[in-house]
Amino acid sequence: MQKLIFILIFCFIGFGFIILPEKKYKQKDLPIDVRVQDLLSRMTLEEKVAQIRMFHSGLGVGLNEKDSLVLSDDVKGRLNFGIAGIKSPGDSYSPERAAKLNNQLQAYVIKNNRLGIPAFFVTESYSGVDARGCTQFGRPISLSSSWNIDLVKRIYNAMGHEARLRGLHLTHSPEADIARDPRFGRMSETFGEDTHLVTEMIVSSVTGLQGDSKGLNSTHIGAVTKHFAGYAQVSGGKNFASVEISPRTFIDEILPPFKAAVQRANTLGIMASHGDINGVASHANHELLTKILRNDWGFKGYVVSDANDIGRLHYFMKVAETPEDAARLALMAGVDVDLYADDAYALLPKMVKTDPSLIKYIDEAVSRVLRTKFTLGLFENPYTDIQKAKEVTRNDAAKKLAYEADEESIILLKNENSILPLDRNKKITIALVGPVLNSDAKSSFETVAGANINFVDDKGFKLTNGDATTPLLTPESETLKGIKQIVDKAKSSDLVVLFVGDDKYTSKEAYFSGGLGDRDNIDPVGQQDELLLELKKLGKPVIVVLKHRRTLSINTIEQHADAILDCWELSEFGDLAVAKTLFGDVCPSGKLPVTVPRNIGQMPIHYSQKEINFKKGYLFSESTPLFPFGYGLSYTSFEYSNLQLSDTVASTKSTINVSVNVKNTGSRTGKEVVQLYIKDIAGSVVRPMKELKGFRKIELKAGESQKVTFAVTPDMLEFTGLDMQVKVEPGQFQVQIGGSSDNVLIGSFEIRK
Amino acid sequence: MQKLIFILIFCFIGFGFIILPEKKYKQKDLPIDVRVQDLLSRMTLEEKVAQIRMFHSGLGVGLNEKDSLVLSDDVKGRLNFGIAGIKSPGDSYSPERAAKLNNQLQAYVIKNNRLGIPAFFVTESYSGVDARGCTQFGRPISLSSSWNIDLVKRIYNAMGHEARLRGLHLTHSPEADIARDPRFGRMSETFGEDTHLVTEMIVSSVTGLQGDSKGLNSTHIGAVTKHFAGYAQVSGGKNFASVEISPRTFIDEILPPFKAAVQRANTLGIMASHGDINGVASHANHELLTKILRNDWGFKGYVVSDANDIGRLHYFMKVAETPEDAARLALMAGVDVDLYADDAYALLPKMVKTDPSLIKYIDEAVSRVLRTKFTLGLFENPYTDIQKAKEVTRNDAAKKLAYEADEESIILLKNENSILPLDRNKKITIALVGPVLNSDAKSSFETVAGANINFVDDKGFKLTNGDATTPLLTPESETLKGIKQIVDKAKSSDLVVLFVGDDKYTSKEAYFSGGLGDRDNIDPVGQQDELLLELKKLGKPVIVVLKHRRTLSINTIEQHADAILDCWELSEFGDLAVAKTLFGDVCPSGKLPVTVPRNIGQMPIHYSQKEINFKKGYLFSESTPLFPFGYGLSYTSFEYSNLQLSDTVASTKSTINVSVNVKNTGSRTGKEVVQLYIKDIAGSVVRPMKELKGFRKIELKAGESQKVTFAVTPDMLEFTGLDMQVKVEPGQFQVQIGGSSDNVLIGSFEIRK
Repeated sequence: MQKLIFILIFCFIGFGFIILPEKKYKQKDLPIDVRVQDLLSRMTLEEKVAQIRMFHSGLGVGLNEKDSLVLSDDVKGRLNFGIAGIKSPGDSYSPERAAKLNNQLQAYVIKNNRLGIPAFFVTESYSGVDARGCTQFGRPISLSSSWNIDLVKRIYNAMGHEARLRGLHLTHSPEADIARDPRFGRMSETFGEDTHLVTEMIVSSVTGLQGDSKGLNSTHIGAVTKHFAGYAQVSGGKNFASVEISPRTFIDEILPPFKAAVQRANTLGIMASHGDINGVASHANHELLTKILRNDWGFKGYVVSDANDIGRLHYFMKVAETPEDAARLALMAGVDVDLYADDAYALLPKMVKTDPSLIKYIDEAVSRVLRTKFTLGLFENPYTDIQKAKEVTRNDAAKKLAYEADEESIILLKNENSILPLDRNKKITIALVGPVLNSDAKSSFETVAGANINFVDDKGFKLTNGDATTPLLTPESETLKGIKQIVDKAKSSDLVVLFVGDDKYTSKEAYFSGGLGDRDNIDPVGQQDELLLELKKLGKPVIVVLKHRRTLSINTIEQHADAILDCWELSEFGDLAVAKTLFGDVCPSGKLPVTVPRNIGQMPIHYSQKEINFKKGYLFSESTPLFPFGYGLSYTSFEYSNLQLSDTVASTKSTINVSVNVKNTGSRTGKEVVQLYIKDIAGSVVRPMKELKGFRKIELKAGESQKVTFAVTPDMLEFTGLDMQVKVEPGQFQVQIGGSSDNVLIGSFEIRK
Repeated sequence: MQKLIFILIFCFIGFGFIILPEKKYKQKDLPIDVRVQDLLSRMTLEEKVAQIRMFHSGLGVGLNEKDSLVLSDDVKGRLNFGIAGIKSPGDSYSPERAAKLNNQLQAYVIKNNRLGIPAFFVTESYSGVDARGCTQFGRPISLSSSWNIDLVKRIYNAMGHEARLRGLHLTHSPEADIARDPRFGRMSETFGEDTHLVTEMIVSSVTGLQGDSKGLNSTHIGAVTKHFAGYAQVSGGKNFASVEISPRTFIDEILPPFKAAVQRANTLGIMASHGDINGVASHANHELLTKILRNDWGFKGYVVSDANDIGRLHYFMKVAETPEDAARLALMAGVDVDLYADDAYALLPKMVKTDPSLIKYIDEAVSRVLRTKFTLGLFENPYTDIQKAKEVTRNDAAKKLAYEADEESIILLKNENSILPLDRNKKITIALVGPVLNSDAKSSFETVAGANINFVDDKGFKLTNGDATTPLLTPESETLKGIKQIVDKAKSSDLVVLFVGDDKYTSKEAYFSGGLGDRDNIDPVGQQDELLLELKKLGKPVIVVLKHRRTLSINTIEQHADAILDCWELSEFGDLAVAKTLFGDVCPSGKLPVTVPRNIGQMPIHYSQKEINFKKGYLFSESTPLFPFGYGLSYTSFEYSNLQLSDTVASTKSTINVSVNVKNTGSRTGKEVVQLYIKDIAGSVVRPMKELKGFRKIELKAGESQKVTFAVTPDMLEFTGLDMQVKVEPGQFQVQIGGSSDNVLIGSFEIRK
């Protein structure tokens, strides 16, 4: 009898396998498109719309004291049909606890929707993963200053891994925006002003985050490259303002980093931009989101809105008469996922009743989300290893990496009389002072300097009251008190290291409903210039360490400081790198990723403008920038010679090899960024002064030489001609190679038909 | 015998009439096109090319001591085949002598080319005809501040007549450029920032210059509206720089004044713009010069290059590989006349040998020049009346007109405690001081003020060394000395009238090879703000008279002056108007033709930007402008009430009448500019905050009311939609009426399909 029962059971199971095979979408070996189609075919309209909406974990997602999942009723209600994703779950938790939360949250999501579709958990990453306990790397603008694409890739690889270990799957980063207006508060989130430099940094960062695409299904996360497109070109540098741009500039200078993110780095996601381009709202821009991105570039990932921007097509941009029109416009333009809004894609089920043609667009959007989830391995690997999250996040390797980037990112702007590096054998007292001095900087300096150097420190004053939304500048009287205090402290020293610039309160994102972040001038706030001048009156050398999130007008500093280390915003180990650089353990090798203007009235001043823009300067003032793009000094020196071209005449499809000899003519090992610029002498439209088209960071010992060769390929000569076609136009070209945009060797070649 | 001879002679003459009728092109009653075709058919290639070239009289054109024509050999050589025109002959002569010169010069031109084709003599007109002895009117930016289109038309009518009396036929004016960047040195040559205001001023000025087109053949001159197009949009405010602009903004905001110049005012000429538009050199822009200008707008006049710009397509813009390519590009794009260059259209005869297809384009260009000459009556009325030139130029009527415009152009920006108008019955001493005080201002003030008021005056210092090409700022030490001198002088006074601002040395055109003119900031140069602060320390009222050619950042003035009269640059009688305004003989009625920023970092700040551009301001500073567009106080006050619409629902082709009641609620007669703005609530593309679409200057006695009615026509609602088609889009609109862009009554209407 038992046997019979077993046989029956086996038969039943076997029969079950025959008539109820595993659903296709659950079979990991099937092609993703097959799985997507299968899953889509099983979904109700409500389930589909749930897959193109996201909400923020701030609505009520957390662990209780016993580390058990606690969800608000609001959140529970949002998970009945599944969800595309949830933003920032556990971002205030330790990596271990965040992993615990995310595993339970994912289990809840899977269990509570009929088809068991897991959710994305999404973060952002401006200085590393934007969550507690993760390694804090330098800001993108700092990383870009290293001009080291391998290093940047390794950093983003570490970020991507730390994020996945927490149980996260996507990051709304990096930013492929071209920052040319330092009034804009988000400048430090970008890789700078130059199309080529940003493009290479984007390829490195996206590839890194995604683990070379190989780690996507278990060890890494997807990148959501943003803000598509032209976001940093906002009028007046004001967040949410419109973008006025020439279509040609848009194609040739703004789009390439995004194109590379798609075609070279396979970014899983793209986020649209808040504003409009020449009047056309980015979230309703079919030309951009569908024709260019998908049809022309072949993008297969998904497009997410920026926070609440679909609804804003109606109530802010006013290109939609109703919330329903806004949802329809965005969906048909190609926005797949609605970030946060409750009044946009939430309306689709009702809208479909009167307009069934929308289903086709909903299906496409859902398919792209599902494809991304399959690509990320969410169906097979929905959970993370809690123990590993604890052990690997911010481990020694990651910290070392963060520090390594700091070493390469510091830019030496001035070094009068070779005052740097400092001699640690002299018994002197150094004053570490200034409003952006970290409270624990002194210990880093003491560790590096050794026994002979005595340090005193004094922050003196703060730049603002530290209100994150609406910071107020410190009253002048208080600042002047702080200056006096600093000067008193510095009197007893032999040399002053002055930390000035700006911070996260004076240069920040201006949220839609949350205060300001952009500025109408770029002078250092408060009385920081006066502080420097007062210190100089002591007759002691003053080394300025410039920490900042936007380009500042540093004429006074440039004139009076004995040396300037431009750091932007380094990692959590930045003080160590500054100390090691000051004492010569590190030879500075960073180069400016932007042109530094003398004042805001010089804008635009990026080096790659049309040559004719530099014909005229201004009355009563210097019209050159204070520091050119690509500039940066070293403790050693490099000599460029013997520029050679493999051909001086070539066809529109040829590659020309250009080589130059770079020699370290100084007395110590150093790194140099060899920069390749192309200048098109004439064209069917007015051409830029020059454009960066290649760069390589090399290390040379004292006296050592290296031949550096670049392949000048046709794509480097292409631009959008008079007929709006991208092509190489025959004619004369220059190749320029050097260590800064304004200091190059020049060779010429001709392109013939 | 005698009889027979007479008969024979008569027969011979009669026979001659039959077989040799007067050439068609000489018959004034034939249609111009017939005359043009006839003349063209008789011309050699050399003669044709001569008709599309111009040279400057500076090459050697003048009268000797006996008032006989003297030409350099260079000039003689240029006249062998005729010439399109000659620039500025006799500009340094009195009207009478200039007329003598131009008559002899024209006779020489006619005699020395085979077909007897007369030449254009061409001037410019920035403050009246740009020649000695002509009435000096206010700058265009001042005239625009009057918002009085009838007055402006009468002024340009006087200018056109004064020019023709000198023997001139064309002026390379007015400027239809939209000035939104005060860094640009030529701001005062424009009518301001607003498309509608500039459009109306252009229609007035072109119509006036051309004598309503009726005076063209004898009493008036042709207008050459410039610079086509987008000239004032140069990047960084730098002359010769490129223009980066949205195609939609270009169509909706930059082109309309030019379109109106063509279609409403029949401008005889158009001058192309120095730079490029989004990479496309204006002088090689076929789309602009042929498709839009001629095919779409129906322009029948001729297009002239800006000085030397055809050659610059090659050596400066670098969109032409050779000078020949430059000539070909310009000719085929639609540039008819080559201004000055010896290396551009001069090459055409040689080029035609290898490329006969060019003849067609040359013929078209020549035809347009000839048509203009026939229109101007040059074949019938080549000479001017020397006696009339002497008597009519700068006669009382013209002077009165210049003065009348000054009265209406002064803008009262501030009037603390109604300090103005001053009481001429009080016995006080007034100090007239400041670096832009005219040396003879005092006499104007004395005349106006009468016996009770005592005046002292002191210029104190100059702003610059007065070098026209490369002015240098007066050294600070010298300025401070001047400030002390002024303060000393002012001590003895009861009230100070302070003349500050800028002048023709600090705000000027930056010529291609001749120095600078643009600025990177808009603070008053020198220590003018300090001068005001020092004067205020005396405890006496300070009235600021602001004289300037670009918008300045006048925060200090706005804060500390007791009253501000903004004058821009008035006519030669400006001091009289200022004095009469100060003493209340004139009630100020000017309104700002631009938005006044607080600093250069606020740019762009014109009021008509997209509404979303005003969502965010700046950290640590006021983000509103210092003064809004359309602003201006009066000595009386006006109350707006009872806004009424004829319809609140209308079709895309309807006209809605909007009326408002305006009442003079003060105690004296005054003029008010009633301004009509339209706000489109939503559109297929992001819409402007509001746009001026109408205005009317009215005069009301104390207590008087007037109902002012505007017709809101479909063209006021049109814009370039998402599909790049210009149309009215149905939806909600606002009509706003008031005395300033920021102070309006609001009504609503709906446009239905």
